[in-house]
Amino acid sequence: MKLTNAYDVELEAVNMEGAKGAKIRWLISQKDGAPTFAMRMFEVDPDGQTPYHEHTWEHEIYCLSGSGMLLTERGDLPFATDDIIYVDPNMKHAFKNVGTDTLKFLCIIPNEQPVTKKTLNPFAGETANNC
Amino acid sequence: MKLTNAYDVELEAVNMEGAKGAKIRWLISQKDGAPTFAMRMFEVDPDGQTPYHEHTWEHEIYCLSGSGMLLTERGDLPFATDDIIYVDPNMKHAFKNVGTDTLKFLCIIPNEQPVTKKTLNPFAGETANNC
Repeated sequence: MKLTNAYDVELEAVNMEGAKGAKIRWLISQKDGAPTFAMRMFEVDPDGQTPYHEHTWEHEIYCLSGSGMLLTERGDLPFATDDIIYVDPNMKHAFKNVGTDTLKFLCIIPNEQPVTKKTLNPFAGETANNC
Repeated sequence: MKLTNAYDVELEAVNMEGAKGAKIRWLISQKDGAPTFAMRMFEVDPDGQTPYHEHTWEHEIYCLSGSGMLLTERGDLPFATDDIIYVDPNMKHAFKNVGTDTLKFLCIIPNEQPVTKKTLNPFAGETANNC
């Protein structure tokens, strides 16, 4: 179990090639015992962005604040506070800050070795709504 | 791919026994093609709560707004905007609104049948910070 404020989690630079003015907080990850997926928060400076790239895993995004642009091969799509984005596996993407304030969003990714046997969830098909 | 505002996603009642004044939006789920986990938003009325129960899968929570209480067998823990909570598999829990405004939080859960082969992520061990 873990309960803390997101802003008390270490803020680290994103040093990957193609990143500019982007930082990350690993809010919940395998280090906390989370078996299946990891929740990270990104903070991107004005004019900054994450790398434009693709990979074999998906992203589930929740924009907490700011104004962003999702760059894709099919064109660019604006997004802002309370927008959600699902990025398919193997889809090229980048998240660019096009506003004047810091762009903040959550980005959840699957773990490298999910412990799926422990966490099979018969309710995830939306047959029941629980928490 | 999906990009939409969270508040444009259908708001459904949580009818499970023990729930009171709780509603849910399935923001990103298997219906969208998400292979591993589902992102939901809960909205809980003042004095409302989710069921006090346990299950074999984990929760990863981000509190968007409001004042809540996490009920556990070891005691109750207050939480508020920008707090994160990791609830272990098989841990009893409920989320109660103890404020005067709607309590809103994201709750991510693993899918019933995760497609893990497609989404193995060599970077999830925090060896690289990318998005």
